[in-house]
Amino acid sequence: MSKVGYLGPKGTFTHQAVHALFDQHEFLSYRTIPECLDAVEKGEIDVGVVPLENTIEGTVHLTIDYLIHHVDLPIVAEADLPIEQHLLVPHSFDGDLSKVEAIYSHSHAVAQCHQFIHHQCERAEVEYSTSTGEAARMVNEKGGNIAAIGNRQAAEEYGLKVLRENIHDYPNNHTRFAVVQKGSEPIEMRELREVNRKTTISVTLPSDYAGALHQVLSAFSWRRMNLSKIESRPMKTGLGNYFFIIDVDQPYDGVLFPGVQAELQALGCDLKVLGTYPCFHLATASSKEATTD
Amino acid sequence: MSKVGYLGPKGTFTHQAVHALFDQHEFLSYRTIPECLDAVEKGEIDVGVVPLENTIEGTVHLTIDYLIHHVDLPIVAEADLPIEQHLLVPHSFDGDLSKVEAIYSHSHAVAQCHQFIHHQCERAEVEYSTSTGEAARMVNEKGGNIAAIGNRQAAEEYGLKVLRENIHDYPNNHTRFAVVQKGSEPIEMRELREVNRKTTISVTLPSDYAGALHQVLSAFSWRRMNLSKIESRPMKTGLGNYFFIIDVDQPYDGVLFPGVQAELQALGCDLKVLGTYPCFHLATASSKEATTD
Repeated sequence: MSKVGYLGPKGTFTHQAVHALFDQHEFLSYRTIPECLDAVEKGEIDVGVVPLENTIEGTVHLTIDYLIHHVDLPIVAEADLPIEQHLLVPHSFDGDLSKVEAIYSHSHAVAQCHQFIHHQCERAEVEYSTSTGEAARMVNEKGGNIAAIGNRQAAEEYGLKVLRENIHDYPNNHTRFAVVQKGSEPIEMRELREVNRKTTISVTLPSDYAGALHQVLSAFSWRRMNLSKIESRPMKTGLGNYFFIIDVDQPYDGVLFPGVQAELQALGCDLKVLGTYPCFHLATASSKEATTD
Repeated sequence: MSKVGYLGPKGTFTHQAVHALFDQHEFLSYRTIPECLDAVEKGEIDVGVVPLENTIEGTVHLTIDYLIHHVDLPIVAEADLPIEQHLLVPHSFDGDLSKVEAIYSHSHAVAQCHQFIHHQCERAEVEYSTSTGEAARMVNEKGGNIAAIGNRQAAEEYGLKVLRENIHDYPNNHTRFAVVQKGSEPIEMRELREVNRKTTISVTLPSDYAGALHQVLSAFSWRRMNLSKIESRPMKTGLGNYFFIIDVDQPYDGVLFPGVQAELQALGCDLKVLGTYPCFHLATASSKEATTD
């Protein structure tokens, strides 16, 4: 049995991703991304699961920054989870939407359900909480004609029922999570279908000039290596200096990647491979491809 | 006098940016990015100020998504604010760091000050709040040997003093804010030095193929148009379809930009200009380039 750390608390989307990825392990909740990654680095836990992109619970730039600047942990897997927000109420609640007097949730979840709240629950007061899990806990504790916005796992964790499913404004909202580990011993995961393999690298440019990025991308383009993500980010060392996070849609190999690296280093770029890993699409409890207990 | 809306509450970094940008206006706080942008769209307020990148208070993807999908509001200015986190205590507090028993803040602010808390305040309990402004309000209300993490404006707003300055782990942490408005009537701003002018456009690719992005960037590169930011983002319509947000380091003109647009449209791309606008670097109260009253 291994120790799996994640960005908590219970009932959050990271918690949901962890349960979709891992089965028979010990799960430990951390309150911030750095705390979770530090715990992996120190060997207190075997793997860590933290959001990489588009989450509602963390500043996601922080994950990449921490992996580049503070810890030396490769990404060993990526998990993509649909973000489904439901309206959760106490079991004693027996009315319809018009009875909801207050809605509790994290401000980002509230923002994601803005159209729904605006059109369907216009009279409900909105109360902010520090996470979607915490909102569900509070609604269970207080009771009455109040609701939380959160996922199905939050409902189960805190004894609430789903009054209305999928109340988020955008139908295809996903969050990507990174699984990182220190040792090379594989940690047992649930049997999930591998969608593809990716390699994530960071590229720092020697200086900022017109066409620099175009030149960097040429190294991938003429090799027909497809990029599934590119993002420029200011360096922590000051304004105006940039680095790039690039996801390449293939595993690290002994020919193409070393060729790219040699070319970019010749241009004065600094490269770091953050990981080469399988990607999994997680299903939510309702879509039955994976269970979230 | 115009009405300026911003992502609140008081004492947050967006609030700080608003006061550095505008002087004699009426300020209205909104609780989510969509609420603020809707208010501009409906004409309830004249301008809105919302975070664009790297903020600790909002899901920033939401701003761009909302500008693309929900409202038709050009970005008319960009403001870049250094994020300085301070440790704030009640005026009655008369000890040193070792006396701090609890620290209140938003989880993202706590994460940004992770090294400081870990090494300097190891015994302090961390309590989470929904914003840095709310943390300052709570510390003022409760009193005692407790502290909030937040900015100088939060200290002034809620009657706290700064016990320790600049406790954030990374020295050059900035947040970019967008100023949007509906009408074309210019809103009076403070006199600020314009750093440069930029144009933000979104480009949607007709299909996902190796080298597509490289081809898109060629249109800018051979015209020697410098890009200061590029970010690929999945489309809301499904996984695997991407669009790009591109910041070009020059104002929209009658020759180069129409040329780029014509070329990219010939490739089947869909383009939208989100704004062409001046950029300002805001200073914090301590650095004296602008006051935040």
